[in-house]
Amino acid sequence: MEIKEKEILRELKKYRERDLKYEDGKILGSMCSKPHPISKKIVEMFLESNLGDPGLFPGTKELEGEVIKSIGNILNNKNPFGYIISGGTEANITAMRVIKKISRGKKGKDKDKKANIILPETAHFSFEKAKDMMDLNYISPPLDKNYIMDVKYLKDYIEDKREKHGIDGIVAIAGCTELGTIDNVLELSKIAKEHNIYIHVDAAFGGFVIPFLEERYRLENYNYEFDFSLENVFSITIDPHKMGLAPIPAGGIVFKDYSFKKYLDVEAPYLTDTYQATLIGTRTGIGVATTWALMKLLGSEGYREIVSKCMDNSYYLIKKMKEYGFEKVITPVLNIVTIKDEDPLRTSLMLRDMGWYVSMCRCVDALRIIVMPHINKEHIDNFIEALSQCKRD
Amino acid sequence: MEIKEKEILRELKKYRERDLKYEDGKILGSMCSKPHPISKKIVEMFLESNLGDPGLFPGTKELEGEVIKSIGNILNNKNPFGYIISGGTEANITAMRVIKKISRGKKGKDKDKKANIILPETAHFSFEKAKDMMDLNYISPPLDKNYIMDVKYLKDYIEDKREKHGIDGIVAIAGCTELGTIDNVLELSKIAKEHNIYIHVDAAFGGFVIPFLEERYRLENYNYEFDFSLENVFSITIDPHKMGLAPIPAGGIVFKDYSFKKYLDVEAPYLTDTYQATLIGTRTGIGVATTWALMKLLGSEGYREIVSKCMDNSYYLIKKMKEYGFEKVITPVLNIVTIKDEDPLRTSLMLRDMGWYVSMCRCVDALRIIVMPHINKEHIDNFIEALSQCKRD
Repeated sequence: MEIKEKEILRELKKYRERDLKYEDGKILGSMCSKPHPISKKIVEMFLESNLGDPGLFPGTKELEGEVIKSIGNILNNKNPFGYIISGGTEANITAMRVIKKISRGKKGKDKDKKANIILPETAHFSFEKAKDMMDLNYISPPLDKNYIMDVKYLKDYIEDKREKHGIDGIVAIAGCTELGTIDNVLELSKIAKEHNIYIHVDAAFGGFVIPFLEERYRLENYNYEFDFSLENVFSITIDPHKMGLAPIPAGGIVFKDYSFKKYLDVEAPYLTDTYQATLIGTRTGIGVATTWALMKLLGSEGYREIVSKCMDNSYYLIKKMKEYGFEKVITPVLNIVTIKDEDPLRTSLMLRDMGWYVSMCRCVDALRIIVMPHINKEHIDNFIEALSQCKRD
Repeated sequence: MEIKEKEILRELKKYRERDLKYEDGKILGSMCSKPHPISKKIVEMFLESNLGDPGLFPGTKELEGEVIKSIGNILNNKNPFGYIISGGTEANITAMRVIKKISRGKKGKDKDKKANIILPETAHFSFEKAKDMMDLNYISPPLDKNYIMDVKYLKDYIEDKREKHGIDGIVAIAGCTELGTIDNVLELSKIAKEHNIYIHVDAAFGGFVIPFLEERYRLENYNYEFDFSLENVFSITIDPHKMGLAPIPAGGIVFKDYSFKKYLDVEAPYLTDTYQATLIGTRTGIGVATTWALMKLLGSEGYREIVSKCMDNSYYLIKKMKEYGFEKVITPVLNIVTIKDEDPLRTSLMLRDMGWYVSMCRCVDALRIIVMPHINKEHIDNFIEALSQCKRD
């Protein structure tokens, strides 16, 4: 058995070696990165834990409560309610479940009508999955010159009497997948407050960036506020397994308070808890434990350093682009850099043949580079060389 | 930093120590168990992998293909299509997405009508989550004397002309959460074939039990067939992280063939693949790698041994129950034992105070014990003593 075990591990390793490695710096289009080294020491400890049945794992459950409290802290919420779940998709679907349920409650006998939700054109495709299942009606206002939702248009749209009673939710993005932009949640909050509309903020990426973004990286006249200090922000997606450096699976959904649990609860007769509010049932405690450890170990100071390094590298990439004659779409808001390209699909496939994995924007003809913590200046130098070679060919 | 790291790991350990341990034999109501020891050696190797972006992890992706093929093999399917996902809930929701989509296609302009799905009363609560999101209409036929769906009733119901065109799917259970029963999928398949109805089998638990169940444990005149060899069985939930002994998260969804992918695909513009069919996006490759290794290491023979041990222990529990004057609800079909109890809630809370975690049935007044691989005869002896003490008090 032991020989067989060794043989299997050897075989597995061969497969694993064919995967890309973050440290090689060729993964330029992923919002995930190499997990912090402490993770490896925690995974084994929590391998058996199952937060789907929390009564059996009270220690791990308490850790989750503390993690949610810590995340609440960075999101300006003293009474957060939430979970560490599989990722941003589950988090966004969970928020859409709540909006749909609240909208049903309001509509009374019109309850079979679809929920109307304002959604940026640049929203992550997890919202398409939510729509596919929940028959939501998305309304996407035009983007303004900063590639965020046009607030003026939206205000007029919502105030139009015909539409007034029909908007059930607004999704705002804080760290857009495509460009790293941040919707003007401050202005959206005012509109939402006036018209009693639920705001969900998708800060899957930005949640572990914006709170740690030093003044010197902040653009003038740009709104970076996105958290629970703004009225009618009732839920936020924030993923430790993106810029929080936790291993997958560690997504986060946080609500303003416990009162939102009732929209999610399903009877769970076989478990130690009588109700279950998470979408996924059985779930490992690894995400909770690693996030807890990382937030203790790094603290605000540690995350600030990581974000600063990524921002410096983003500016370095912009500088190199300029030297080589490449143009940006926007000045980076967070550590996502866009490179204008007439035929981004062709370029990205050429780059892939050379071993570089970038991805593309949808709303504009451009490549997008996520300058994650695993990317350093040398990788950027090499990448720019490769990109420029594509253009010469 | 290193001192701080050690301190954090020490603190984490303290929390973890407050969790129950499978090896203590007190967890009697969970369908998860202690993962096989080889898992620990694999977790670290695949910690960084992300099957949500498979182009970056081609080695891990290939492993997934092989795992699905192996699982297809035990389910009598030479052309399986599927994924290793977060668990049974995601798998069941995924199947409901497909049924809803197919039903929409058929209904044409009546497409806003709810999909009608036959669902056993004893179905897992993940189907409630699916209903909550997808507005499904569940029809639950009465249970027969074996606590499975009454096939005769169902046949009449479906053949009733008024209902004939209205049934979009049948969910059958192979290893019911509550009692371990198996629906008569053989007969259901005939009905489904005749009326062109999609069958989804929830074998989250039974999938790694029934194919390895030796003849001597099989009840007379009981139908154990549940897999793709039966017509109109189009999808099966089968969880490696239950009786497959993989660590969480390792659930499985398998379809008859690739043609079902189109009902799930959502455009995924930022990733190396253009479409994504899984409900959850970012997902670790750990579940794939551990399942691959376990299926190689244990093989059919190994799983047969594990199942036999659990069945022997189930019968041992039944014998002890008889000695102590406790009655079963049904003769165990799989390694789940039911104990009749007038007030199961009270008894289970008393047991919990004594450190024993059992759970309850819904469809009958009874406790339920899942005789997982971590349970041995000594645990059973001690448990029966404790239960009998509850009754004396």
